[in-house]
Amino acid sequence: MSYNSFGHLFRVTTWGESHGPSLGCVIDGCPPGIDFTPADIQHELDRRKPGKSRFVTQRREADEVKILSGVMEKSGPDGDGLVTTGTPISMMIENTDQRSKDYGQIAEQYRPGHADYTYDVKYGLRDYRGGGRSSARETAARVAAGALARKVVPGLRVRGAIVAIGEKNIDRGNWDWDLVEREDNPFFTPDEASIPVFEAYLDEIRKSHDSVGAIIEIVADGVPAGLGAPIYAKLDTEIAAGLMSINAVKGVEIGEGFDAARLTGVENADEMRMGSDGRPTFLSNKAGGILGGIATGEPIVARFAVKPTSSILSPRRSVDRQGNEVEVVTKGRHDPCVGIRAVPIGEAMVACAIADAFLMHRGQTGRI
Amino acid sequence: MSYNSFGHLFRVTTWGESHGPSLGCVIDGCPPGIDFTPADIQHELDRRKPGKSRFVTQRREADEVKILSGVMEKSGPDGDGLVTTGTPISMMIENTDQRSKDYGQIAEQYRPGHADYTYDVKYGLRDYRGGGRSSARETAARVAAGALARKVVPGLRVRGAIVAIGEKNIDRGNWDWDLVEREDNPFFTPDEASIPVFEAYLDEIRKSHDSVGAIIEIVADGVPAGLGAPIYAKLDTEIAAGLMSINAVKGVEIGEGFDAARLTGVENADEMRMGSDGRPTFLSNKAGGILGGIATGEPIVARFAVKPTSSILSPRRSVDRQGNEVEVVTKGRHDPCVGIRAVPIGEAMVACAIADAFLMHRGQTGRI
Amino acid sequence: MSYNSFGHLFRVTTWGESHGPSLGCVIDGCPPGIDFTPADIQHELDRRKPGKSRFVTQRREADEVKILSGVMEKSGPDGDGLVTTGTPISMMIENTDQRSKDYGQIAEQYRPGHADYTYDVKYGLRDYRGGGRSSARETAARVAAGALARKVVPGLRVRGAIVAIGEKNIDRGNWDWDLVEREDNPFFTPDEASIPVFEAYLDEIRKSHDSVGAIIEIVADGVPAGLGAPIYAKLDTEIAAGLMSINAVKGVEIGEGFDAARLTGVENADEMRMGSDGRPTFLSNKAGGILGGIATGEPIVARFAVKPTSSILSPRRSVDRQGNEVEVVTKGRHDPCVGIRAVPIGEAMVACAIADAFLMHRGQTGRI
Amino acid sequence: MSYNSFGHLFRVTTWGESHGPSLGCVIDGCPPGIDFTPADIQHELDRRKPGKSRFVTQRREADEVKILSGVMEKSGPDGDGLVTTGTPISMMIENTDQRSKDYGQIAEQYRPGHADYTYDVKYGLRDYRGGGRSSARETAARVAAGALARKVVPGLRVRGAIVAIGEKNIDRGNWDWDLVEREDNPFFTPDEASIPVFEAYLDEIRKSHDSVGAIIEIVADGVPAGLGAPIYAKLDTEIAAGLMSINAVKGVEIGEGFDAARLTGVENADEMRMGSDGRPTFLSNKAGGILGGIATGEPIVARFAVKPTSSILSPRRSVDRQGNEVEVVTKGRHDPCVGIRAVPIGEAMVACAIADAFLMHRGQTGRI
Repeated sequence: MSYNSFGHLFRVTTWGESHGPSLGCVIDGCPPGIDFTPADIQHELDRRKPGKSRFVTQRREADEVKILSGVMEKSGPDGDGLVTTGTPISMMIENTDQRSKDYGQIAEQYRPGHADYTYDVKYGLRDYRGGGRSSARETAARVAAGALARKVVPGLRVRGAIVAIGEKNIDRGNWDWDLVEREDNPFFTPDEASIPVFEAYLDEIRKSHDSVGAIIEIVADGVPAGLGAPIYAKLDTEIAAGLMSINAVKGVEIGEGFDAARLTGVENADEMRMGSDGRPTFLSNKAGGILGGIATGEPIVARFAVKPTSSILSPRRSVDRQGNEVEVVTKGRHDPCVGIRAVPIGEAMVACAIADAFLMHRGQTGRI
Repeated sequence: MSYNSFGHLFRVTTWGESHGPSLGCVIDGCPPGIDFTPADIQHELDRRKPGKSRFVTQRREADEVKILSGVMEKSGPDGDGLVTTGTPISMMIENTDQRSKDYGQIAEQYRPGHADYTYDVKYGLRDYRGGGRSSARETAARVAAGALARKVVPGLRVRGAIVAIGEKNIDRGNWDWDLVEREDNPFFTPDEASIPVFEAYLDEIRKSHDSVGAIIEIVADGVPAGLGAPIYAKLDTEIAAGLMSINAVKGVEIGEGFDAARLTGVENADEMRMGSDGRPTFLSNKAGGILGGIATGEPIVARFAVKPTSSILSPRRSVDRQGNEVEVVTKGRHDPCVGIRAVPIGEAMVACAIADAFLMHRGQTGRI
Repeated sequence: MSYNSFGHLFRVTTWGESHGPSLGCVIDGCPPGIDFTPADIQHELDRRKPGKSRFVTQRREADEVKILSGVMEKSGPDGDGLVTTGTPISMMIENTDQRSKDYGQIAEQYRPGHADYTYDVKYGLRDYRGGGRSSARETAARVAAGALARKVVPGLRVRGAIVAIGEKNIDRGNWDWDLVEREDNPFFTPDEASIPVFEAYLDEIRKSHDSVGAIIEIVADGVPAGLGAPIYAKLDTEIAAGLMSINAVKGVEIGEGFDAARLTGVENADEMRMGSDGRPTFLSNKAGGILGGIATGEPIVARFAVKPTSSILSPRRSVDRQGNEVEVVTKGRHDPCVGIRAVPIGEAMVACAIADAFLMHRGQTGRI
Repeated sequence: MSYNSFGHLFRVTTWGESHGPSLGCVIDGCPPGIDFTPADIQHELDRRKPGKSRFVTQRREADEVKILSGVMEKSGPDGDGLVTTGTPISMMIENTDQRSKDYGQIAEQYRPGHADYTYDVKYGLRDYRGGGRSSARETAARVAAGALARKVVPGLRVRGAIVAIGEKNIDRGNWDWDLVEREDNPFFTPDEASIPVFEAYLDEIRKSHDSVGAIIEIVADGVPAGLGAPIYAKLDTEIAAGLMSINAVKGVEIGEGFDAARLTGVENADEMRMGSDGRPTFLSNKAGGILGGIATGEPIVARFAVKPTSSILSPRRSVDRQGNEVEVVTKGRHDPCVGIRAVPIGEAMVACAIADAFLMHRGQTGRI
């Protein structure tokens, strides 16, 4: 219900701006007895962290997570092991790299593509320091929550990859999940051949003081058939809502998505046969793992579109709070393609949606 | 929270299957003092009604709405005027055309592309008569609710149109809103030139015992700037969730949507100037009327993709509950393109999302 | 969240006024596979039904429930058996005894103790026919929902009884649950000796054109230890909210309740020993079956206070919509003690709260 | 919906245990533009703070609040002025007095009256350090949230007082609100004559290694008529739920509460006349400021019962996790009457409920 929460039984509330002392999240409803280490959370945060290549913002943040509640230390040889107690888990990340600067102009001008104007209209005031709640900093809290969500569903594996940056698509024939996590791959791309293409393309974009969008694909394996519900709680709906809630996202699709509108019923039907394990199996996965809003047991496939970074060095026409017409240039350490770092964020949202659906399904039906 | 509700302050709960005695909705939180007539509701239901052309299901339903609570008769010359009292509004539509037939095979077989298998896995049983909650019948209740939602926001106008059926796109240069509602336009298309194209295409599809998908665009004018919220309650998120909750929808986008991922920041920025009315105005609307999750005051533009009707006369391979491999042919009076009738449904969901955002904004800020 | 719903996973939304065509409820989230008959529902409605003795309103309502969705007929010898499918269950009760009358005065005058004035202030208008949503008619829908809630938790038994009418208390030493349901007991009292006392007392109250309040006790046996949660979702909280949401209720307590404030820690502690079944057992139940918000496994005991019926034949001073000072006499067929019929209503609310807690507990912990 | 949140539009989520590094809350949905200072929050926290007299726990906590998000510094002469931005407000309080000790026995034994046993049954494990979420420490976060809630409704004033400690009642004829806040009044009592009575009584209780309960009354002035809603969102219900969610609370009542059950309709009716300001006024306030769930404009009066502190030095019989029968003595620095410090907590919950109802009413009706 609330403006800053996501989920029903596995409910995540995030708080914090990019230029306050810290940001964080509270996870309410996490099952008790889940074992994890702070390193599990930190690993996901590090994947999202800025400053790792020249293609992302050079802002330097330690992004070190502190776990403040909802856990107990676990007796045993593993020194830093924790276990969830079932009470709310509060996690906090300090903002360490808040350069003090003169926000004078930004405080008054409406940057095109930003939420400056709409915040002012809505609230009558706005926190102009670093974009407020619409800053990409907020997503660190989601990633921390997602790291725990991954552990709620036994056997769940949620991975993501870039499938397009601006006009450049990957070749799906080269798909290699291992590549995605490789240190020398700055793009979360699964196609090795795309790396030099993206490098050249983004260098050109940066030189022209511009930015570009991206498309990310998330794949969740190990989702038990039966999660989700018809109609307003379709698993598609929950995933779409989660992904669309990420800043700069403007489109979401499941399975064939918009391409499904181009197909015929014969082409789109995922036929079924009996599998060698004596259980029904699907011969294709056009549905992206969801039929009637309910998981089929096949991998869940979702894609989302991230618009180009709105903060660019090229001047754009705008107005200020006083009604003067101005030209705006947004300086600062901005990602030329904010979509790249959206990969672990998208994974986190899908993991949260699935963890929530798992608990909801167990609650209503007791069948898991 | 619940599985069958949509919205927070303007909250719609729908109920009913296609083969029970009736279906309906309860609208909780509708403001008091809204004047309307049953004809206002009926008009929207008639737009969605099956049986109006050979391109939609031939099932015959009166789809006559009964208003059971939450209203008072309005004194005055207008005999059937009603006014909302602020208490829950219950609306019911009887199912009149439930042909009795032998469901034996359908009860046992899993139709590809349908939710038959996933219902069985989830619930351990399913209402095989007419698709249960995943039937398009359910959407009548949404349309009834949307008819009232339209009246909640003064000056709001929500319209929709088909922009593609299968491989055939409309020519946006021909866009004519008046055409969309014309009696001799069976497609909700805004492009007159597309009518014969769609007719020939769909006749061919039907003859080949097949079906096809569609893309629908919804445009909302008169949305006050400020509606929505950052992050998890982004107006984009609420609209996306509403549209994705419609059965057979697999993709949703706002403004440029997936195309925004292909654009550069320079191309995508909606520049601003001062309007002749002394208020900020946008020189373009790539954002689809929403920045940072909050309405800009520009028209809100959303599109959604509907997959092809899964019920087709062409045989497809599947399995049954007993684990036998079978071939399934789905007879019956099905829409060759279920996307056509989705236009008023999409309008209803967008209207509900905006009405809800209007009340939420008024609640939190008091600024409207 | 919504104004007219109760519960989280087992979520009941009620609708309807006393003088519209019908009223009803939608139950969302009911588990699939629950067997019941319409007679199970009807039995509870009949217990609440008006007109059964001279001590309750003489309004005559059939209170016949129609089940419109969310169920399937069950194959088998039992002709009218139904089974829940997991989709929303809509139940409707028609209003049959709406005497047409002149509401002129009531429409304009504010009856003391009624919500007439507050409705007008809140909504700017009100449905003056029969009290609108504040009519006791609304509670029929709760009782229908509660009848199903009782079946959600295996082994659950929820019973209620009158423990005081006005100044007259029962003797708890005479407690006899069988008596409560006996046909010749018009008071739901568990103390046979109280029957003539209540009869004489209420006859006197009626003759003096007055009314009186009551206190009801609800006892739930078979509640599994572990239901509930600390803090805001304390099982005490959920039960208190449910009972307080009944019209005319002004107080709620769990276990010793207000008397616990008078006790010392030594007196109030429910000591524990090991039971003969090898499980912990409590030597007393001052806590009313709930510690820290979580069920102990002991019977849950709740009491609630119902104020005297506000509709009385004795004239009371008031004002009207135009600001004139008036004397109001409320004619009609009103219960001299509306608390009597509140027994099955209280049971229904407690059953709903426990069913919801059961699903929530199963969802979060999987431990049931 | 979630287990650790309270409210709908003004939504407070608390987190933290008494023995972790910190505890806190997130307030989501607070209106923008509310001016306050950290001292406003700190003032309320100090009122609740332990260690101020020998009648409350001697645990020493600074209870210093840190505001981490959702605010901006206010330009102006007042150096520490803050203004809410409309985004989530995170507040944190560090736990400074966590004596390290051997929890061995407490970890294994179930203290009578505590939630030890029920936590173990529910979650399969529990945080035995200091009572976990059921610790009174959690209430500090509520008080911080309530301090802000008080500022949401213009003109609202929420005050509370002790009306009984154990068997000792105050004399309502002596009621003096100024006394309640006086430094030399350790009991929040409004009756000066009660101070020596309570002192002697509690000293005796402490000497006998016992504890005792209390009854607290909260009065809210300046609540606009119209707040609340019929049925499940009755303002009575929201207040009752808020108060009942405080640990150790076992009963709640509004206005005459349980005494209303003893009254006749003639006695209980709050008669109305026209006030000198030309608006309707009530000649009494038996209803406690709420009719039909909606505020009348009269002061809202609520009372709640706190059970005696369960941690006592007198040995009580119990069992341990291994099923051994034991005698438990709970050492430590516990409040002999935990109800005393419940006064500001109850105020906070009532303030939060009213702030939420204010925003809900404004959202649905726009009439404020």
